[in-house]
Amino acid sequence: MTVAEKWVPSVRYRGDHLLILDQQQLPHHTVYLNVTTIEHVWDAISKLKVRGAPAIGIAAAFGLALWSNTEKENDLQQFLTKLQTQRDYLASSRPTAVNLFWAIDRIVEAAQEAATVTEAQKRIEAEALSIQEEDENTCRKIGEYALSLLQNGDAVMTICNAGAIATSKYGTALAPFHLAKEKGWDLSVYANETRPVLQGARLTAWELQANDIDVTLITDNMAAHTLKTKNIKAVIVGCDRVAANGDTANKIGTFGLALQAKALGIPFYVACPLSTLDLGTASGDDIPIEERPEEEVTHLNGIRIAPEGIKVFNPAFDVTPAEYISAIITEKGIISGNYTEALSTLKEQK
Amino acid sequence: MTVAEKWVPSVRYRGDHLLILDQQQLPHHTVYLNVTTIEHVWDAISKLKVRGAPAIGIAAAFGLALWSNTEKENDLQQFLTKLQTQRDYLASSRPTAVNLFWAIDRIVEAAQEAATVTEAQKRIEAEALSIQEEDENTCRKIGEYALSLLQNGDAVMTICNAGAIATSKYGTALAPFHLAKEKGWDLSVYANETRPVLQGARLTAWELQANDIDVTLITDNMAAHTLKTKNIKAVIVGCDRVAANGDTANKIGTFGLALQAKALGIPFYVACPLSTLDLGTASGDDIPIEERPEEEVTHLNGIRIAPEGIKVFNPAFDVTPAEYISAIITEKGIISGNYTEALSTLKEQK
Repeated sequence: MTVAEKWVPSVRYRGDHLLILDQQQLPHHTVYLNVTTIEHVWDAISKLKVRGAPAIGIAAAFGLALWSNTEKENDLQQFLTKLQTQRDYLASSRPTAVNLFWAIDRIVEAAQEAATVTEAQKRIEAEALSIQEEDENTCRKIGEYALSLLQNGDAVMTICNAGAIATSKYGTALAPFHLAKEKGWDLSVYANETRPVLQGARLTAWELQANDIDVTLITDNMAAHTLKTKNIKAVIVGCDRVAANGDTANKIGTFGLALQAKALGIPFYVACPLSTLDLGTASGDDIPIEERPEEEVTHLNGIRIAPEGIKVFNPAFDVTPAEYISAIITEKGIISGNYTEALSTLKEQK
Repeated sequence: MTVAEKWVPSVRYRGDHLLILDQQQLPHHTVYLNVTTIEHVWDAISKLKVRGAPAIGIAAAFGLALWSNTEKENDLQQFLTKLQTQRDYLASSRPTAVNLFWAIDRIVEAAQEAATVTEAQKRIEAEALSIQEEDENTCRKIGEYALSLLQNGDAVMTICNAGAIATSKYGTALAPFHLAKEKGWDLSVYANETRPVLQGARLTAWELQANDIDVTLITDNMAAHTLKTKNIKAVIVGCDRVAANGDTANKIGTFGLALQAKALGIPFYVACPLSTLDLGTASGDDIPIEERPEEEVTHLNGIRIAPEGIKVFNPAFDVTPAEYISAIITEKGIISGNYTEALSTLKEQK
């Protein structure tokens, strides 16, 4: 099948090694790193060769499996102590990645239930595979719900890369396009290039093109004209953190897209795995916005594109207030209206 | 005086030569081309070394003066015939630039009123100097009116470069910042970088920085977050064509900025010399939008930044409907509300 043949997963586990898609080389080269040690996994995460919260968690879980599979320690307690050391080591690869901690702690907990080292090794591998599989199921469900909001032939706009390569498979905001392809629908996608780091141009454009999905690249300031003149039926975006009231932090530019979509009467959807919902954050006002180095704006591929010494404001994220979000699409269903109540209810469901 | 010392004009006439600021080398190098012949002027216009409709017209007018000053023909009719040939030659340097035709036709008409070749030569030089001076006055008046809408200390956002280097002096949208500097006000400016060609990063950031005006560079997708968090008091933009009903064509991204400003309750102003008002165009629907080469989006400084073969939409302009424009600022005053009546009245005033 064409789709399966063309599919480019972010991480592939092969027992004695791991294949990690090197996203730093995209879109120019599709290269899989042949990763055989936990040190290689640490390096791939640290150097952003694997990116996207779910994909990082999956790579780290398999990193512990790679270590476990070749560990010669026969004493269970000694094995678990060493596992904890490896867990702490991997945790240092990207200190702010919540999904990373969540994934490696799941691995440690699974091993702690074993009665022998051999059983622990089997449990570690099984848990890593479960994390990957669960993420794929979450993405598929988000994609199916998102697709229920669209029709065959629709044009949709997105920003950044909430795609398959940031997850196990399908992605979140890009999941409906991959699923539409599987069912033979023709959706067309307008991808904002997403300055300053160009995740839209480098990753989303590449990922959709590689899967034969109709994608057109625009610069971020072309969004309004494109929304108005290209019969766009919806905007769909991913999220970095959703607060208890539905306010959504995501890649810089998302808030502007939401304002433009609302002004033009176009629905604006957030694709949100419930793992990204943070009920401990009351509203968007409580989400700190990371500011990143000026060079991301003033340089591209190492070449200066702005005057020497120019002052720069470079926020990496923005917050879209819930009032501009037409619906939040989770793996447990689509919600809209009173997000505070609906999000809390969904999170409690098992 | 600091301002005068730092001032970098787009075009300087020196009788036997012309100094043209090479905008292709900005922001990295501030280089004046020493232009001695009409062929050099043709080349500077054709290769976008001088850009901005008013600046192109001024350069072309002085180009005819350079030719005229050294022309040895003694017979007036022969002289005028040769002038027409030179006029047609310059007209071919940038065939779609309306201001270019307007300026060189003014020169030809001025010469036709002369009784001798010597008088024609004087009239040509005088007319070119008048065109430059009139443009400076227009820009100054627009700047003064715009400044009446602002207060000392305000932060303002702009896009593209409707600046001094696109005109004789001051610019249109940037005129209030230059005038504020002259009167000792502290305005701060947020400049959108303006993809794909980066006129904001390369030209506006450079022009304001060169004049000691407080300017901060952002990428286009940072506009909404910046408008909301940086206490922006107004957005001010230039225009490429204003229709009879006030609908305004300007650099791509202007429409999106207008939508975002309106949603956030921030005034959105268009700085419009009346030469840019086209009463023959009823509304924005009648303004064709030029689409430019894909390479502008997929490449930067000759380096590919998007996948091979990716589909691109690259509109160079968009149209902001009059309903999103808080006021249009002309050299004859500020108008708002019913643009159709007000614009028609202003254009008729002498």
